Amino acid sequence: MGYNLRLTVSCPDRKGLIAALSSFIAMHDGNILSADQYVSDGQTFFMRLEIEGQGFGLERGEFDAAFAPLARRHAMDWRTSYTDTPKRMAILVSRYDHCLIDLLWRWDAGELDAYIPLVISNHPDLAPRVEAYDIPFHHLPVTKANKAEQEAEVLDLLSEHGVDVVVLARYMQILGPEFVAAYPEGIINIHHSFLPAFVGADPYRRAHERGVKTIGATAHYVTKELDAGPIIHQDVAHVTHRATVEDLVRLGREVERRVLARAVRWHLEDRILVDGARTVVFE
Amino acid sequence: MGYNLRLTVSCPDRKGLIAALSSFIAMHDGNILSADQYVSDGQTFFMRLEIEGQGFGLERGEFDAAFAPLARRHAMDWRTSYTDTPKRMAILVSRYDHCLIDLLWRWDAGELDAYIPLVISNHPDLAPRVEAYDIPFHHLPVTKANKAEQEAEVLDLLSEHGVDVVVLARYMQILGPEFVAAYPEGIINIHHSFLPAFVGADPYRRAHERGVKTIGATAHYVTKELDAGPIIHQDVAHVTHRATVEDLVRLGREVERRVLARAVRWHLEDRILVDGARTVVFE
Amino acid sequence: MGYNLRLTVSCPDRKGLIAALSSFIAMHDGNILSADQYVSDGQTFFMRLEIEGQGFGLERGEFDAAFAPLARRHAMDWRTSYTDTPKRMAILVSRYDHCLIDLLWRWDAGELDAYIPLVISNHPDLAPRVEAYDIPFHHLPVTKANKAEQEAEVLDLLSEHGVDVVVLARYMQILGPEFVAAYPEGIINIHHSFLPAFVGADPYRRAHERGVKTIGATAHYVTKELDAGPIIHQDVAHVTHRATVEDLVRLGREVERRVLARAVRWHLEDRILVDGARTVVFE
Amino acid sequence: MGYNLRLTVSCPDRKGLIAALSSFIAMHDGNILSADQYVSDGQTFFMRLEIEGQGFGLERGEFDAAFAPLARRHAMDWRTSYTDTPKRMAILVSRYDHCLIDLLWRWDAGELDAYIPLVISNHPDLAPRVEAYDIPFHHLPVTKANKAEQEAEVLDLLSEHGVDVVVLARYMQILGPEFVAAYPEGIINIHHSFLPAFVGADPYRRAHERGVKTIGATAHYVTKELDAGPIIHQDVAHVTHRATVEDLVRLGREVERRVLARAVRWHLEDRILVDGARTVVFE
Repeated sequence: MGYNLRLTVSCPDRKGLIAALSSFIAMHDGNILSADQYVSDGQTFFMRLEIEGQGFGLERGEFDAAFAPLARRHAMDWRTSYTDTPKRMAILVSRYDHCLIDLLWRWDAGELDAYIPLVISNHPDLAPRVEAYDIPFHHLPVTKANKAEQEAEVLDLLSEHGVDVVVLARYMQILGPEFVAAYPEGIINIHHSFLPAFVGADPYRRAHERGVKTIGATAHYVTKELDAGPIIHQDVAHVTHRATVEDLVRLGREVERRVLARAVRWHLEDRILVDGARTVVFE
Repeated sequence: MGYNLRLTVSCPDRKGLIAALSSFIAMHDGNILSADQYVSDGQTFFMRLEIEGQGFGLERGEFDAAFAPLARRHAMDWRTSYTDTPKRMAILVSRYDHCLIDLLWRWDAGELDAYIPLVISNHPDLAPRVEAYDIPFHHLPVTKANKAEQEAEVLDLLSEHGVDVVVLARYMQILGPEFVAAYPEGIINIHHSFLPAFVGADPYRRAHERGVKTIGATAHYVTKELDAGPIIHQDVAHVTHRATVEDLVRLGREVERRVLARAVRWHLEDRILVDGARTVVFE
Repeated sequence: MGYNLRLTVSCPDRKGLIAALSSFIAMHDGNILSADQYVSDGQTFFMRLEIEGQGFGLERGEFDAAFAPLARRHAMDWRTSYTDTPKRMAILVSRYDHCLIDLLWRWDAGELDAYIPLVISNHPDLAPRVEAYDIPFHHLPVTKANKAEQEAEVLDLLSEHGVDVVVLARYMQILGPEFVAAYPEGIINIHHSFLPAFVGADPYRRAHERGVKTIGATAHYVTKELDAGPIIHQDVAHVTHRATVEDLVRLGREVERRVLARAVRWHLEDRILVDGARTVVFE
Repeated sequence: MGYNLRLTVSCPDRKGLIAALSSFIAMHDGNILSADQYVSDGQTFFMRLEIEGQGFGLERGEFDAAFAPLARRHAMDWRTSYTDTPKRMAILVSRYDHCLIDLLWRWDAGELDAYIPLVISNHPDLAPRVEAYDIPFHHLPVTKANKAEQEAEVLDLLSEHGVDVVVLARYMQILGPEFVAAYPEGIINIHHSFLPAFVGADPYRRAHERGVKTIGATAHYVTKELDAGPIIHQDVAHVTHRATVEDLVRLGREVERRVLARAVRWHLEDRILVDGARTVVFE
């Protein structure tokens, strides 16, 4: 059993939750490798446990049944994952390649523990970049006329490949509500501004006009309201008056890929729990 | 002549401006200690020169008359200052003391080259902190009824003390248009958010609700439109889900005082030139 | 019972430690407000628990006796503190005032939960700054001749005032081994460089000569080997070729006070556990 | 003439240098796009000018002859470059690919204005990555026995391809003095620590052992003394006690590639002037 188990839990806060969870693990001879806990506003309890598979008394097939009664008693929202079964991640991209290439390089370098069954784009341009990593590339063009159909096709492909998480690596299309509903807390977007500043289109041009001295990028889960989903990570770069819009775009690319990569890694390692409009990130 | 001269210039860009300016200085045997130049959008030329007083052929009283014809020919907007005549800076403050105390400490440590003839507050609380530095403290309370009068009183005091620059060190009042008009590019405010995010009141509470992962502060010149003046400096601090509103306030204080102090120092050293809605900062 | 209890534990790692600790708390009806855990190199277990006093079944006087058998069984190194009994913190300072003033301001603002019975200096200069906060100031000059005696006097004063933690806020004396031995993991120093770069004297001058592009500061616990104690926190500031040694000193002051304040706050909140030559910091 | 001219100058400081330089340009009807100036320790004058080719009265072939007398009079060390003639940059690499891939991506994206005639490696592994960009890859293995010969071969290749600047993108060989002497101020190395901390081998392991809270990377020109050349750029990443050596390596990769890319871009744009053991960087 060369894998570990990750268990994430959220539920109404009450006394004894850590004891209940850790005693359950101890009872089955489990070794807790790491434990993180947080109580939000004194109301909601969040916990992430990583348990060594080696020596743990519950086989993979047995855990859920054994844990369910405890979870039910505390009204827990819970999830497990096994480190030998990486998540299945699809990347959606348009023409900007910096986030895509960065993710692929990090994935290839072992920084991102995922299986990538496919990359989908509404443009054909980036096929060679993707195929260089032996990952299938699907070109599904989108027009005003076929937008709904194209989204349905994309969803079919994702479903066919058993995709768990969708990364929008500068995918320049606004997803329809049905698409968003299909992957709750499962679509990660990178927005090229320091949200909530410059919500919407063309943030670098607007940042330049406003004369800001710092630009940023924001990785967030996609919800039906544009650019308003729970923020996972943000970072910034300092700029001076000398920076043109093109310089902002260049510097922004650096921040975008760093911020997105970190958010994706945290997601793949089950480090992010959604807390209403916010996120809990157990780094 | 133990002083240096600082000359700042902006004008429509054309060939030969650096040559014209530096030759003028050379002709009068001046030693240029530092020179910074910038052309904005290929249209507007900005320059800052620092000239050693020692050996310079133009006495303080003579410079303006000698330079005026050149300035006129190029439609220059220009300003001089002498390093032995620090600017006269007033600080306006309410009850929050962190920016005030930081400015006073830095001033006392020699980081801010200014003369501070007075501090004005709409509350009496901070009088002892100010008087510990032997700076006169004026308490001018403000109510809805007396707002216009109080502002007139403040303006009278500033004028009486020959104030050049007004620093709003968390002064919790919105200044009226007449006040703002009296000090164009001469009032520096610290806004406790990363503008243009969270314009207006209570940014830390709103930042917490939105679940941002970075908070910021913005120093800007005050214009008649609230929170929309040219940005001088911005910086941020990273926060996690664990940060309460109180933590944001605490971390924000640190960023605010750092950002404001830097903006004030740059202003006092004539490093900031306003370029429409933006600033040029010759650090 | 308006206080909370903080319990920090380290011991050899083994299965069931979290269960043992959290079950002990649950058994006595305790509400765990926050829990942080870490296993170092698969060998040493570290945990910090904050437990609500309200409703907890063990009175302050009872906890130690009740917990001791469990602690003994697991060979725990453990400590408790109660949030209504802040630590007793002494500040040692020489002539540089920036760290001192920053600590005092933060303490006054409620950022540092400590009781400060005294400030000790080998110079008289800063007495007024300290007395403005109604804190007793002791001037104990030190010379080559009286160094051992002076340290003994300082130790007597600390002991007399029941001091728990000593902060060296740019105290420009190297403490003798007996002094250091009297406060294991209890003396916090701020070193004005990014350790281990520029160990020893005059780091800013040496940084300038080396032409570094970033300067830093390091807060660490003092051990008998100079500048080699476990690092608590580090931060940096970017510098350019324009920065003189004086500029480095000025920028350094800003980093130093920020880094020291953070280290002190973490210590006061029992967030730091020493792990051999390193620290575990449960932020 | 769709190019601009860049002129960089250093010489003993004296009055009138800016006037002399800018008047020379003005006399030949040149439009100065940007001007940066710095005086080091009151002794050495540095300037960088970017002049619009369009309308400039001196053709490329004429500039040097026209400028030489002025340069001679002031003992100037000077250099020109033309923006339509990018530098010829070789990349040397071993097995770590992150810096290489980042440079190639940025180059392909137009961030680095260079011609890359070849990449040389002592290992064959990265050939496909390089050839994907249609850049010739040369594999020149190195052993203890053939080290001098291999360096001679590399130098021959560089010379044959007219290389101006050599980037060591984690080239894991120490270059011999003859190699270094062949490219004064022309070899850029990325060191995976915050120099002068952790000079030498295996800095991440040593950083982990020392328990630092920040890791860094340093781009510097190579001189004959190992890791002691003039520093061009440095940056850092914060780390916590949770970071293993592997995590430091992963985070370090991110900092290394950012720092190296910036140094390379500045070099290609003639923004770096060496000032003894330091660098002047006109960003």
